[in-house]
Amino acid sequence: MDNQRILRVTARMREAGLEQILVTSTTSVYYLTGIWVEPHERMIALWLTSDGKATLFGNEIFGLASTPELPFVAHKDGDDPVADLAKAVKPGKLGIDKFWYSKFLIGLMALRPDVTPVHGSLPVDENRTYKDAQERAAMRRASAINDQVVAAAIAAVREGVRENELAALVNREFLARGADGEGAMLVCFGPNGADPHHGADATVLKPGDSVIFDIFTPISRYWCDMTRTVFYKTVSDKQRQVYELVRRANEAAEAAVRPGVPLSRLDEIARNIIAEGGYGPCFTHRLGHGCGIDCHEPPDVSGASDAICRPGMVFSIEPGIYLPGEFGVRIEDLVMVTDSGCEVLNKYPKELQVIG
Amino acid sequence: MDNQRILRVTARMREAGLEQILVTSTTSVYYLTGIWVEPHERMIALWLTSDGKATLFGNEIFGLASTPELPFVAHKDGDDPVADLAKAVKPGKLGIDKFWYSKFLIGLMALRPDVTPVHGSLPVDENRTYKDAQERAAMRRASAINDQVVAAAIAAVREGVRENELAALVNREFLARGADGEGAMLVCFGPNGADPHHGADATVLKPGDSVIFDIFTPISRYWCDMTRTVFYKTVSDKQRQVYELVRRANEAAEAAVRPGVPLSRLDEIARNIIAEGGYGPCFTHRLGHGCGIDCHEPPDVSGASDAICRPGMVFSIEPGIYLPGEFGVRIEDLVMVTDSGCEVLNKYPKELQVIG
Repeated sequence: MDNQRILRVTARMREAGLEQILVTSTTSVYYLTGIWVEPHERMIALWLTSDGKATLFGNEIFGLASTPELPFVAHKDGDDPVADLAKAVKPGKLGIDKFWYSKFLIGLMALRPDVTPVHGSLPVDENRTYKDAQERAAMRRASAINDQVVAAAIAAVREGVRENELAALVNREFLARGADGEGAMLVCFGPNGADPHHGADATVLKPGDSVIFDIFTPISRYWCDMTRTVFYKTVSDKQRQVYELVRRANEAAEAAVRPGVPLSRLDEIARNIIAEGGYGPCFTHRLGHGCGIDCHEPPDVSGASDAICRPGMVFSIEPGIYLPGEFGVRIEDLVMVTDSGCEVLNKYPKELQVIG
Repeated sequence: MDNQRILRVTARMREAGLEQILVTSTTSVYYLTGIWVEPHERMIALWLTSDGKATLFGNEIFGLASTPELPFVAHKDGDDPVADLAKAVKPGKLGIDKFWYSKFLIGLMALRPDVTPVHGSLPVDENRTYKDAQERAAMRRASAINDQVVAAAIAAVREGVRENELAALVNREFLARGADGEGAMLVCFGPNGADPHHGADATVLKPGDSVIFDIFTPISRYWCDMTRTVFYKTVSDKQRQVYELVRRANEAAEAAVRPGVPLSRLDEIARNIIAEGGYGPCFTHRLGHGCGIDCHEPPDVSGASDAICRPGMVFSIEPGIYLPGEFGVRIEDLVMVTDSGCEVLNKYPKELQVIG
């Protein structure tokens, strides 16, 4: 149990008028207890009351032990997974984790009609948004490794290489540096880069292609996430113009990060630069997303976000321009808000590079 | 839209007294519509009424088009994702997909207190349990590829290899044979095999180790899933005894599959053989699980299952024995129930193998 985090979460619960919440996401359970369980279709739930008492309910297959600090109430496959929970929770409002499966909630409501389920993720999510010292160190370390991996990937760009060969190389480089498992990444050559979600396939590199590496993986549970775009053999005037526009958007948004600035303003700064350059409609996604134990977590970095920069927030700044049938450019860093501005966690250079 | 499947699902809805259901799982939406959307934290919901009318609600970012057969009602990031749905659904019982996120259900209930959410996955799940001709062909093809991949993986077992190198090889072999993406797998050497969920890490192979390959990936949307255990350099008497016990349990359960046999009976047959061999407490999980567009789907193959074998069902038969600190053995095939027995989809041999 992380008692400091529990204290901060229960303080938020009291502010929100929530006497009890169920924390069920793998990452939020880990954040509070240090226990990592991927339940898949099975159930795990941490029942937390605003006096700081916590009980874990879950399938015996998870192999968890009861401790005086954190009792574990086990059920078996074939049992009603919410029966013990239904015996425990108090009448009235019960905050529910946003990602809990409806099958469990409906089962609990049937057994306990005196319980009113309400949105219950904010007390944990609001705390997870502000990384503590241990988390900041983990995220710096993960991004430092990501800088090394992207350098190795860019060094491997060569005639005839396939996207999925470079993806496999990124995986090996991550594993060799202590990543938690296989990495996830987008590797996109030329026109493939115009799809912001194109996965690596057997496409072969050609001179004149843009090459996008968007690489992200958890390292000791904390994610890194960065994107670099380079060009192979030649770069056209249009490619250069688009690249410099995206780079300016990335750098201007990063320069604007400081406590008190709305995240929607960062999105606007980047979007205005790209629009003034004539490519507004080609920047088709939000500027970024929070990052931590989940790769995508609060805060949202978009025009619709109501979040404000505060020290300890970590999020991505990733403007892009996508030209169907031609090419794409995206440049992404993770940034951490400091007391006076921000620390850009990715150090790999952003100057335009033509390889080979 | 797959009108045959819609007809079968609405027939089940009427039997269950459900006039309306929300289908929200990626795989169930795909099963009924042919549309594949991974919404992540965003919302997609197919509202289906028992007269066969269907409407799809989802984020505009999914890029779906309305058709006369299937209207698409789009919302944007920043909108309340359930607002349109709340305007559409009828008062009274509403069947809810088991995996819908609670945040959406709680939002819908707040807007529509006249709607009573109930478990609503069965009408779709019960149909998905019986594979139609197109699905049977897809599952045969996926398992045939899995046989080739496990052969390649076993051929790569050699002095000094690491679990995660073999895992990467499995990935490459799957991709080269047309898998939908990176595969998932457990590769476990020696004592690691005593944890049924151990993922591949940097453990180095040693003589005398058992080697478990549990490999599974979707191919054209349908999953394969098999496990083979081999031994490296030497096999002890105890390893041999445990292996043959697991193999007998696997083969006896498979031989018992035919229409009318309860799935709980299959679990019992395998469990009895392992218990009579003296290893009952070491077979720590259910015998198997249904498999199709999801790797784990109904029916449950356990002592608690109330399902009965019927033609078209596909499920795994995967007994195992786990000896902490020593080794583990698991042997798994997918089987498809036929009119008179079953077709074992995995053909890779199960005779004990000592490699190298």
